[in-house]
Amino acid sequence: MTVLDETIATIRPVDSDAAALADQRLNSLTKPPASLGYLEEIVRRYAAIRHDGSAKKGRAAIAVFVADHGIADEGVSAFPKAVTLEMLRNIAGGGAAISVLARRFGYELRVFDVGVESDTSAQRWPGVTYRRIAAGTRNFLQDAAMTRDEARRAIEVGIEVARDFAAAGVTLIGIGEMGIANSTSAAAVISAATGIAPARLAGRGTGLDDAGLRHKIDVIERALTMHRDTMHDGREILASVGGFEIAAMAGVCLGGAATHVPVMVDGFIATAAAAAANRIAPGLTEHLFFAHRSAEGGHPEVLEALGARAILDLGMRLGEGTGAALAMSTIEVALDLFHQMATFQSAGVSGKIR
Amino acid sequence: MTVLDETIATIRPVDSDAAALADQRLNSLTKPPASLGYLEEIVRRYAAIRHDGSAKKGRAAIAVFVADHGIADEGVSAFPKAVTLEMLRNIAGGGAAISVLARRFGYELRVFDVGVESDTSAQRWPGVTYRRIAAGTRNFLQDAAMTRDEARRAIEVGIEVARDFAAAGVTLIGIGEMGIANSTSAAAVISAATGIAPARLAGRGTGLDDAGLRHKIDVIERALTMHRDTMHDGREILASVGGFEIAAMAGVCLGGAATHVPVMVDGFIATAAAAAANRIAPGLTEHLFFAHRSAEGGHPEVLEALGARAILDLGMRLGEGTGAALAMSTIEVALDLFHQMATFQSAGVSGKIR
Repeated sequence: MTVLDETIATIRPVDSDAAALADQRLNSLTKPPASLGYLEEIVRRYAAIRHDGSAKKGRAAIAVFVADHGIADEGVSAFPKAVTLEMLRNIAGGGAAISVLARRFGYELRVFDVGVESDTSAQRWPGVTYRRIAAGTRNFLQDAAMTRDEARRAIEVGIEVARDFAAAGVTLIGIGEMGIANSTSAAAVISAATGIAPARLAGRGTGLDDAGLRHKIDVIERALTMHRDTMHDGREILASVGGFEIAAMAGVCLGGAATHVPVMVDGFIATAAAAAANRIAPGLTEHLFFAHRSAEGGHPEVLEALGARAILDLGMRLGEGTGAALAMSTIEVALDLFHQMATFQSAGVSGKIR
Repeated sequence: MTVLDETIATIRPVDSDAAALADQRLNSLTKPPASLGYLEEIVRRYAAIRHDGSAKKGRAAIAVFVADHGIADEGVSAFPKAVTLEMLRNIAGGGAAISVLARRFGYELRVFDVGVESDTSAQRWPGVTYRRIAAGTRNFLQDAAMTRDEARRAIEVGIEVARDFAAAGVTLIGIGEMGIANSTSAAAVISAATGIAPARLAGRGTGLDDAGLRHKIDVIERALTMHRDTMHDGREILASVGGFEIAAMAGVCLGGAATHVPVMVDGFIATAAAAAANRIAPGLTEHLFFAHRSAEGGHPEVLEALGARAILDLGMRLGEGTGAALAMSTIEVALDLFHQMATFQSAGVSGKIR
């Protein structure tokens, strides 16, 4: 049995009794009933996913997966492929948006090279963990992006990351990514996983113009036609049109669910991973939080298809886990309120009269 | 010249040159153009309000104003009037939601009694600053809620708070409130200030049932008819149907604008203060941030009428400045990104190719 199969077999539904227990305490706190809005639902969901009615708070960590995409050769990105490597260094070096946010919030930030074109593993760049599957995916207009075995291995990298975090006391994992051209791969994965048409999903990514966007849609449509007969499940979808970082994030979603650690899904690309994971283990989304409505592509429609509610809506479309970091801090706020607010009884505050 | 008139005369438009300067730096940071979405607009607005293109970050503080309302005698709240005093103690004592949030974010929290029915000033409750105008407003179905002089004094309490904060290096002020029945007063103020009908504004407050909500709308409609001829400007609106905490928050909005300190407007009640302040000094809203779309009453419609965009949308309707605290942390995040992210040049990251 592979690690992947074993993980899928371990996943259980979330714990509604734990949610009910948390709800009892929420209703005893000094505030009008339900007046904290979605923050209260966050606490209930956290308790249910953790199977812990006391909703104990642990450490939070962010995993950023970085990889290159063969499909970049089709000219679907406004930035050159070299930027993947340059941003790997920038994220690990502390200068990227996610580096700033992880520092600010005190979240452990781990950056994984899961398949950047240039191999720097011999140089062991500080702050980078090397889990390379290959030197980028293949151009999926010519071939499958990766072999089925590569897809499984990439997913298992993510599972291992989730397990390691869980073992270290992490109770909330954020996932993010970097990879030039990966919004093209993500749109293809989402379309294959949900049936939403590419024209509704493809966005301007890092800054395509109108002609570039039309070309990107055409590339995705041709790829989906080409791979139609080899995308029967989530693994095949990832192998056909996915990316190593997308597969690894799907693995974190699965590994988090198996170890009762909620995973915060970032934006458009991370949602592709969640959509694929949800095809691999149907019902998985109840174990996940969705950080924000991304301004990239048709993200709100994808969230709806997954039955997911986003926490924030700030028009962001940067990736790297930046939306996840912000939304994770919202979860921490909700848990602080849950644990630290006085009850009507302890504070001597009168209850409702009508 | 009164402090209020002097403050109004001091207010200048925000600084678009400062916003442009901030925008230049935003475009040099290692991210696709505009990909931080509304966080970038936040930085530009902060720079413009501060008249500071470098968008320097200072301390953040929250002022919570607490007062009672004569209109509570009409049975418009689901909780008894005594809760105002009980929550004054709870907020100052650290057990209320805003106390938890201020601690978490490291914001100075100041709690002002501007007119609670029971006078505890002789006992000097720890953590409470006494700036009492009167022992609650009058029932505005019988009389004006306060005299014009009381309204001015309550506004000037807020102006003084903003000035004191500004002098102490605070560069971001959150406003919040507590006062049983104040969503009735707030709906009346907003209706008078914007022309939106009471039935579209009145909400369930702390938890009214359907009959209670119908009664509340009826009370507001009767009050607006009764005071129609004495509500020609923002001050008269506040005097006729306002509350001391609402007038004081309006004062913070005015005082913040006069001292170039952005004010974060909390939810429904605080927005009533902003609407009144905007009638006192037209155009004032460009100096303000609006924290969130509250689930109370017709808040989204009010924001639209004020030309305001809310930062968060979490279905909260608690007041106390809780939405403001969360949104203030979003501003701090935006400023950290602005100041700490690497530039394309410093990080050696390639730019756009198409």
